[in-house]
Amino acid sequence: MKTKKLLLFALLFGVCQMLFAQPQRGPVFDSPVVNKDNTITFNFLAPKANEVILSGQFLKSPMPMTKNAEGLWTVTTPAVKPDMYPYAFQVDGIQVADPKNANMFPNEGFQNSIVEITGSAPLVHTIQNVPHGTVSYESYYSAELGTRPLLVYTPPGYNAKDKTTYPVLYLFHGTTDTEETWTKVGRANVILDNLIAQGKAKPMIIVMPYGRAYPTISKSSGSLRNWDNLQEFKKDFFGNIMPFVEKKYKVKNDKDSRAVAGFSGGGGTTLFLGLNNLDKFSYVCGFAAGMLENEFDRNNADFFATPDVNKKLKLLWLGVGKDDGLYNVNMKFMDVLKGKNIKYESFISDGGHTWMNCKLYLSTIAQKLFK
Amino acid sequence: MKTKKLLLFALLFGVCQMLFAQPQRGPVFDSPVVNKDNTITFNFLAPKANEVILSGQFLKSPMPMTKNAEGLWTVTTPAVKPDMYPYAFQVDGIQVADPKNANMFPNEGFQNSIVEITGSAPLVHTIQNVPHGTVSYESYYSAELGTRPLLVYTPPGYNAKDKTTYPVLYLFHGTTDTEETWTKVGRANVILDNLIAQGKAKPMIIVMPYGRAYPTISKSSGSLRNWDNLQEFKKDFFGNIMPFVEKKYKVKNDKDSRAVAGFSGGGGTTLFLGLNNLDKFSYVCGFAAGMLENEFDRNNADFFATPDVNKKLKLLWLGVGKDDGLYNVNMKFMDVLKGKNIKYESFISDGGHTWMNCKLYLSTIAQKLFK
Repeated sequence: MKTKKLLLFALLFGVCQMLFAQPQRGPVFDSPVVNKDNTITFNFLAPKANEVILSGQFLKSPMPMTKNAEGLWTVTTPAVKPDMYPYAFQVDGIQVADPKNANMFPNEGFQNSIVEITGSAPLVHTIQNVPHGTVSYESYYSAELGTRPLLVYTPPGYNAKDKTTYPVLYLFHGTTDTEETWTKVGRANVILDNLIAQGKAKPMIIVMPYGRAYPTISKSSGSLRNWDNLQEFKKDFFGNIMPFVEKKYKVKNDKDSRAVAGFSGGGGTTLFLGLNNLDKFSYVCGFAAGMLENEFDRNNADFFATPDVNKKLKLLWLGVGKDDGLYNVNMKFMDVLKGKNIKYESFISDGGHTWMNCKLYLSTIAQKLFK
Repeated sequence: MKTKKLLLFALLFGVCQMLFAQPQRGPVFDSPVVNKDNTITFNFLAPKANEVILSGQFLKSPMPMTKNAEGLWTVTTPAVKPDMYPYAFQVDGIQVADPKNANMFPNEGFQNSIVEITGSAPLVHTIQNVPHGTVSYESYYSAELGTRPLLVYTPPGYNAKDKTTYPVLYLFHGTTDTEETWTKVGRANVILDNLIAQGKAKPMIIVMPYGRAYPTISKSSGSLRNWDNLQEFKKDFFGNIMPFVEKKYKVKNDKDSRAVAGFSGGGGTTLFLGLNNLDKFSYVCGFAAGMLENEFDRNNADFFATPDVNKKLKLLWLGVGKDDGLYNVNMKFMDVLKGKNIKYESFISDGGHTWMNCKLYLSTIAQKLFK
């Protein structure tokens, strides 16, 4: 009888183990494993695959992985410069995120995982034991577009009960990114927590909307750069997003307390919404801003027609990487600004069209805003 | 000259298109596409794959997909019962989430995408144009575990400025899930928004922590059900999470204004933390709670030793699906409760160990709490 009971327990235990954990046959392993020497070991279980390759923005070129007898593919990278990077596995030509890693890159067009290498000292985006702000997931309503998501960072100490009001940065993601990319890949909230703790940035509110009217991927809706999509988003931004924020959050609502910044396609949106509305914004920052030379005049019609823009802009900031495909068009835009005697700050970084650069650009401009 | 300029524009346009959008060669397509007749079309681009199979919790068995000349794999399902379901593609034996779908299932052990079929009338978890609450991503500090994430739902109209206080539901996810699974897969916030708008649930705060001390997957840290992990989490919960919430949020702090609920492994955590602490909680709800019969006595030692538990519990609720692997152990636990004359409510649903059932269970208990 006792043996029978024990057997039953053992059986139940086994069944429940299977149920509680998702099916996990074969070897037990973690991935990624960041080693003490800043090398990273990646593991991916695929007994039937013929070829698994690691691709990551910390690599000069993809690294083939090797399979052991259990079907576990492994590779250890050379030492990596501390930062936070997107990566994926190419499994017989199919891009796969790392199933062992819950840190995903929010995007509508591809799936990447995120690996963080902290190194020996905390970086500007490293989560530290400092006072933390809050990221609130809000919903607002657009008569044309329906219920829409919006993320709002409030700084440490933000308290609806007191009378303090804050300046506000509107921050746009890139094409195919989502409203979550600036926090989950760009660590905007953590960067501000750290800079505020160090006294390097003013406490501010950051508003991160879904930065287009319609998804970019869909055949039916066209790309973010589609003019109609941008016009629809403009309507949503001024008609719904800004009023929602100014009603619900304790923001200052003068132009010198408002900034707009964005990456890639969202950098294009930033310049379009910011520069053509200098009655509303005094700070406009493009991060590898997406632009086309043949659209400069159309996209900046009001801006170029505005007198005394240098008095109306406290900061026009343009950052881009030397290896970024948008480097040339950003240089051309700076030439146009020079030709019109419009003041701007430029920041030419190493590297390309990456979120590592986004974090660098945000941490740079955050120290310049509202001062 | 004009031709040259046009060519340059065309070239720049092409380069930028490539840069703004992630590489998207070949056919343009969406996935998933929910059709008007509640069938769903899935598309996945994999020219080199030999076999692609759709697996989804809306299917009785996985469906093979077929490849066209461009390498696009497609399948259209039969009509699906309106709900929100996890799914993935099995590509030559490797599970892959849908790269065209940004709605991911937050999990540490696998990657699934989420598809929503609304049908002809809104469901309890359908996002509607009703007043919306806010989901705040908070960070708190544990001396033992470091900086930890915590999600807090505040109901529509929550206003730190007025004196209203709210009852609070602590809600735990399942094994390998994360602090985001209850909102992103369980739609806890949307369910409450809708039930509050309909007058069916009391406005309440919902606290969704990362429900274990250490990740479940890691070899070094053991599973959620690991007794040591549970003891560490208990310390974190009472020592850090509850104090953080009661300091920052306007919660009522009597036991009749506190509930705890959770799914699967988190259901086990719920029963352990709730039933053994009836001075703190009057409502305890297990959703397909993870338990082992041979641990009943150990895990409920204080509970079973407490006199007059029926006076101390306003609701002990146990829900489980007929096809759930944990059905039997939940039934056995109910037998033990009966044997001890402990009152409980049971809810036996159709279906198995799924988040479709989680949504059903939450929407059921939310109407019973704090009344």
